[in-house]
Amino acid sequence: MSDDVRMRGFLSRTSVEEATALVDQRVRWLEAEWISLLEAGGRALAHDVTALADVPAFARSAMDGFAVMAEETFSACADDPRPLTIVGESRPGRACETPVAPGQCVRIMTGAPLPAGADAVVPVEQTRREGDVCCVTAPFAPGQHVSARGEDIAKGAVVLRAGRRLRAQDLGVLSSLGRARISVIRRPAVALVITGDEVVPAGARVTGYQIPDAVTPLVRTLIERDGGRILTGPIVRDQEELVREAIQVSVNAADIVLVAGGSSVGQHDLAPGIVRALGELSIHGIAMRPSSPAGIGFIQDKPVFLLPGNPLSAMCAYEFFAGRAVRCMAGRHNDWPHTKMRMPLGQKISSMLGRTDYVRVRIEDERVWPIAISGASILTSATRAHGFAIVPAEAEGYPEGATITVRLY
Amino acid sequence: MSDDVRMRGFLSRTSVEEATALVDQRVRWLEAEWISLLEAGGRALAHDVTALADVPAFARSAMDGFAVMAEETFSACADDPRPLTIVGESRPGRACETPVAPGQCVRIMTGAPLPAGADAVVPVEQTRREGDVCCVTAPFAPGQHVSARGEDIAKGAVVLRAGRRLRAQDLGVLSSLGRARISVIRRPAVALVITGDEVVPAGARVTGYQIPDAVTPLVRTLIERDGGRILTGPIVRDQEELVREAIQVSVNAADIVLVAGGSSVGQHDLAPGIVRALGELSIHGIAMRPSSPAGIGFIQDKPVFLLPGNPLSAMCAYEFFAGRAVRCMAGRHNDWPHTKMRMPLGQKISSMLGRTDYVRVRIEDERVWPIAISGASILTSATRAHGFAIVPAEAEGYPEGATITVRLY
Repeated sequence: MSDDVRMRGFLSRTSVEEATALVDQRVRWLEAEWISLLEAGGRALAHDVTALADVPAFARSAMDGFAVMAEETFSACADDPRPLTIVGESRPGRACETPVAPGQCVRIMTGAPLPAGADAVVPVEQTRREGDVCCVTAPFAPGQHVSARGEDIAKGAVVLRAGRRLRAQDLGVLSSLGRARISVIRRPAVALVITGDEVVPAGARVTGYQIPDAVTPLVRTLIERDGGRILTGPIVRDQEELVREAIQVSVNAADIVLVAGGSSVGQHDLAPGIVRALGELSIHGIAMRPSSPAGIGFIQDKPVFLLPGNPLSAMCAYEFFAGRAVRCMAGRHNDWPHTKMRMPLGQKISSMLGRTDYVRVRIEDERVWPIAISGASILTSATRAHGFAIVPAEAEGYPEGATITVRLY
Repeated sequence: MSDDVRMRGFLSRTSVEEATALVDQRVRWLEAEWISLLEAGGRALAHDVTALADVPAFARSAMDGFAVMAEETFSACADDPRPLTIVGESRPGRACETPVAPGQCVRIMTGAPLPAGADAVVPVEQTRREGDVCCVTAPFAPGQHVSARGEDIAKGAVVLRAGRRLRAQDLGVLSSLGRARISVIRRPAVALVITGDEVVPAGARVTGYQIPDAVTPLVRTLIERDGGRILTGPIVRDQEELVREAIQVSVNAADIVLVAGGSSVGQHDLAPGIVRALGELSIHGIAMRPSSPAGIGFIQDKPVFLLPGNPLSAMCAYEFFAGRAVRCMAGRHNDWPHTKMRMPLGQKISSMLGRTDYVRVRIEDERVWPIAISGASILTSATRAHGFAIVPAEAEGYPEGATITVRLY
């Protein structure tokens, strides 16, 4: 291999749209797994859930008061209350076995089963009590203050659909249906391979020209946000056999592999060649800023993402491509997960035609301000930012005053 | 105690604003704890972080190419390139010890330390290679394609402020600063006491008039969303000594106690009296729908929230009051954590003056539609909804077409 080839720059770059389309085309939901309802918040439901019973399973009171035959109260008013003899009490879980007959009522608590014969509940506030007699001071209609059987969920109804990202209230409903475990899409295991002779673990003593690994804590947070779980290993030195071994082990252990560092085209950038040798390097070099030396390949049909070693570039490549694969495998929408807003620009954004830019922005005075930085790969630009804007390849930027979409960190 | 007092309805109800103000007034950040950076995503920073060193700690290359003295290239062009003799190589973590003199250059990789004498990097794309000589085909300015020492973070700068909710990129920055552990606000431990003779654990076999516990999985998800961790115990039967014991144990073990069920004023509603006896029942009965029988108290200065046993009402009371306390203790903003949007109503919302309503809504055709339900406490109204709107006590509702704020689930 000649020096010119060993260190040559990218000959051409793939568009962000093509790279994104490749991810969408090749990545699918993982299989289902059964987990406890208690762990299921935020997970994607794997199958439709059909109610096997009515909820509530019996007519119950929606108020504290007295269960009555509604027609007994039709002529009741404050000046001429209807006296009813109290013949029992119904409490939650402890039904009253005595049926309600004309002239009678049963004391009832919220949530308690409605006794036989009764068809309405009079709230305690609309009664006067005289010993064993309850005087009803207003008329009530049949069904009033009663939760009918099946009112919330009718037996046989499809309650939640496959793909639903489970919310707190969904778990309550599933529990009401008698479920303790539920079938959800498995969380993708995402192996992160950090390469680089200069990289030491976060917190380790740094000597000479070493730098701490900033990628692992950063990318881990994003993987967990997207519904994946991270697998980490030791930091790998820039030697062909070590990087190859780390990638192969990761492919065997994980659903998705991220390789950070050594992703470009220099002679010491080992990852692209290894991915090509072990499988397929589908895309290498993307028309974007930052993180143009990113790549996407497949080994044993598992996606492998090459992230630049610079933490901001790694973050950007994760956000555009790898995160999309994680979300998709986890059964979520693959689109950006950030809250979006539209707001006018306080200052123009310049961008090169043919290149997609990931621009960190601040929001001040209800306007969007791009963060001025000397280099594209300054990580603190993303800590000072409130969010980011994407300038697509076909735009040369946006003028001051243009309304743009900002996604919030 | 007379029957009238034992089952009387609320004599008066506190406003939602007063209840909210009480929470804000009495609840404070918890103390700090040190945790691994890898676990710190989403946590609230307890102290300002100041940089103890420059990042980067040395001038380094932003490109693959050649480190040069910029002035050597000032007259270079494609037709008259400047030949420079390659005298060494600088790789990340492996500096080139040979300084660059006039007429010389050093091959350099992205991230590698800039050798002495050099002040710019020429990207490989703008060179031609002839054996040991690199011909530069364009002029370069001092500093070009070089990340200066301290360019990202200058030593002594305050990088992140106390209270900051840590994002992925913040963890990268902290790691770059050499941190492996970080001081964050401790997560509040939230004990959930489920009471009710009729309640059985989720998934347990239900007989007679029993119902499964839908509150635990629901509230657990919300507690974790808000940065707390849940402590659960066995379901407690409606007996004074059992409920008292469960509340006391929870107060001793947790930072916040939630008691679900038995929160109203009936003779079998034990929780309010127990909280009053063990500490202070500050608020009982709130002018809202659902969950008017909610309450707030303090035992040993720890907040205790009484949630109605109905799952939707429990959710509502959690969201308005308890969640606010959890977020505040965890060092977060105490305001609603949901994404907000403003949109016109497709159909009017009616509400009673003097009562705050929590209205589940759907969004269709870019309009907001309240979910029509027969009862206020139907949990599936919250699964069918996209979000909710709050109608404050001073409004009798909103007419069709009014633009209202919706918070998304």
